[in-house]
Amino acid sequence: MPLPELTEIAEKLPETVPFVGPEAIERKTGVKIRARIGANESGFGPSPKVLAAIREAAEGIWKYPDPENYELRVALANFHGIAPDEVTIGEGVDGLMGLIVRLFMEPGDVLLTSLGAYPTLNYHVVGHGGRLEFVPYQGAHEDLAALAEAAQRLKPRIVYVANPDNPMGSYWPAADIEKFIAAVPDETLIMLDEAYGELAPDDALPPIDTSKGNLLRLRSFSKAYGLAGIRVGYAIGPKKFIGAFNRVRNHFGVNRLAQAAAMAALADQDYLREAKANIAAARERIARIARDNGLTALPSATNFVAVDCGRDGDYATKILEQLALLGVFIRKPGTPGLDKHIRISVGPEADMALLAESLPKAIRAAQGGA
Amino acid sequence: MPLPELTEIAEKLPETVPFVGPEAIERKTGVKIRARIGANESGFGPSPKVLAAIREAAEGIWKYPDPENYELRVALANFHGIAPDEVTIGEGVDGLMGLIVRLFMEPGDVLLTSLGAYPTLNYHVVGHGGRLEFVPYQGAHEDLAALAEAAQRLKPRIVYVANPDNPMGSYWPAADIEKFIAAVPDETLIMLDEAYGELAPDDALPPIDTSKGNLLRLRSFSKAYGLAGIRVGYAIGPKKFIGAFNRVRNHFGVNRLAQAAAMAALADQDYLREAKANIAAARERIARIARDNGLTALPSATNFVAVDCGRDGDYATKILEQLALLGVFIRKPGTPGLDKHIRISVGPEADMALLAESLPKAIRAAQGGA
Repeated sequence: MPLPELTEIAEKLPETVPFVGPEAIERKTGVKIRARIGANESGFGPSPKVLAAIREAAEGIWKYPDPENYELRVALANFHGIAPDEVTIGEGVDGLMGLIVRLFMEPGDVLLTSLGAYPTLNYHVVGHGGRLEFVPYQGAHEDLAALAEAAQRLKPRIVYVANPDNPMGSYWPAADIEKFIAAVPDETLIMLDEAYGELAPDDALPPIDTSKGNLLRLRSFSKAYGLAGIRVGYAIGPKKFIGAFNRVRNHFGVNRLAQAAAMAALADQDYLREAKANIAAARERIARIARDNGLTALPSATNFVAVDCGRDGDYATKILEQLALLGVFIRKPGTPGLDKHIRISVGPEADMALLAESLPKAIRAAQGGA
Repeated sequence: MPLPELTEIAEKLPETVPFVGPEAIERKTGVKIRARIGANESGFGPSPKVLAAIREAAEGIWKYPDPENYELRVALANFHGIAPDEVTIGEGVDGLMGLIVRLFMEPGDVLLTSLGAYPTLNYHVVGHGGRLEFVPYQGAHEDLAALAEAAQRLKPRIVYVANPDNPMGSYWPAADIEKFIAAVPDETLIMLDEAYGELAPDDALPPIDTSKGNLLRLRSFSKAYGLAGIRVGYAIGPKKFIGAFNRVRNHFGVNRLAQAAAMAALADQDYLREAKANIAAARERIARIARDNGLTALPSATNFVAVDCGRDGDYATKILEQLALLGVFIRKPGTPGLDKHIRISVGPEADMALLAESLPKAIRAAQGGA
């Protein structure tokens, strides 16, 4: 019996999850995760005002969300000093990335990124039949000069840069980013991922400027705002491209509680400052724990710390696996060159204490088994 | 200066919203909506246990949702007597429809639907470069025989049927649906939209049978479960196609509160029965109000009632516009043949009372202005 066929592109795709969730790891290992410090979430959570806003909004959950995300767009526009039609809301930065790829890339078109950068973007590119071109990291940094050079040479449809970077936690000062933006050909869309932007030093983010015709900047409520579970990201850019999202997006995709939570989070900048201080302190704590165990913590402009385990990728993987068996969930890059690092997200003191207790054991076990 | 170009498909698309939200209507008219009975939401809301589950889950909102929606899939699998890998979760039926179109339709491929059926599906088809073929309604029903005949003739990639139907509220007994399914060519995917399934009479839904290789059935928590704002829908079908969603979906798209809410809603079938009784009573109330005003209410297997205003589409539109000015939000079909109807969603007694008070005024105004 002939059955319906998938499209040519879909037929070739693997059934993947870009990130295996900690829930799946628990189901697989049977070990309960007691320190969830692997997905760059913020265990400090959102503002109490956000929780109150969610609980209050629950009453109206029988209503569809506003498909225009109007109030949130106006709030974000006021916050950033732009017009409401220069910002669009999506189901996390992940959702927006999928739409951007769909809007700009024909099958066979090229997206240029760094080898080892955000895998969900690559998933979307391949999922739309696009091709990936990679530039290696330069140490712990995405290599802006090499990316610009490759962009000039390849004229990709899109070039991707994260600032600050994930998984390494590094950042470039705004001046370097601006130089990069100027060097990219005008016909190449620059996807500037600033999911960790709120956590970066003051000199990291170029001023918002929507007159730059080939620049889309992505922001998230998942990191500094502590709302990974609510799925709200936004894109800022020129009106023409922001409007284009309305051609393809799932208009009711951002749910009602998400809109309410994001509004409340944005309004409580005092709490954001407090969260940033907690996150910075936890970063220091992770660095100390690493040092105490003879490992090298890299400087971080994010809510996680990349830690150089000093040997090869297999060794770092063993430490990660041993930590998982002790109830400590972390992640690590898999790309050669980066893969000797483990990536540890910040968390409240209980998480940090369990990390401090578990890391020496994990290292011993990793060395014993090596 | 050459700028990045949209894809050929995206360039041709309009910037549309398939449904203008009541919030946008309020912003435009300046009139506050006091009876929100236009979007087939359920003003009776979800179970109190769902609200409790949302409020409790808020505490963990700093965590990403489980990208596999594992617990919800297992709960739905148990509920329907299928395997967990025969059901996938999406950001509402809307989100799932977009993925289905993307998975199965190449540019230029045909989706067969009824003229005047769910517009968001058409939006997704056009958005992926697909072509739409239409079969007219037969009275208040999607014309199953004509759809089957057209499917045999056109061999479309997908044929769409909603049972019960929106916007007319009619339904076909399971036996007719099964006959239709058998008549569709095997290589055509049947998208059976059962968003209103829980509200249909017992004889409307064929038993769940995932062995049928070209059938995907769509269900929603937006209607009977009263959770339109939470954005959870699901698709049931053969493992092969359910697995295919994992190739293209936004894995973290269904947020954490949505998963918790859907779990709690599914678990409270007592409340669902209560809600269905309330919805049925409100349907009767709408029918009485229509009759009292000399209009004809159509039988409904859903949470809304299509009301024949007895003249042409313009007249029905005038009644709708007058109701909006009185704070009563309803919608109506725009397709010739269906457009003499207005579509009124159920709601609690306060909404129904305002409808009863406003409809005679709206009719008078519509006639005066005619």
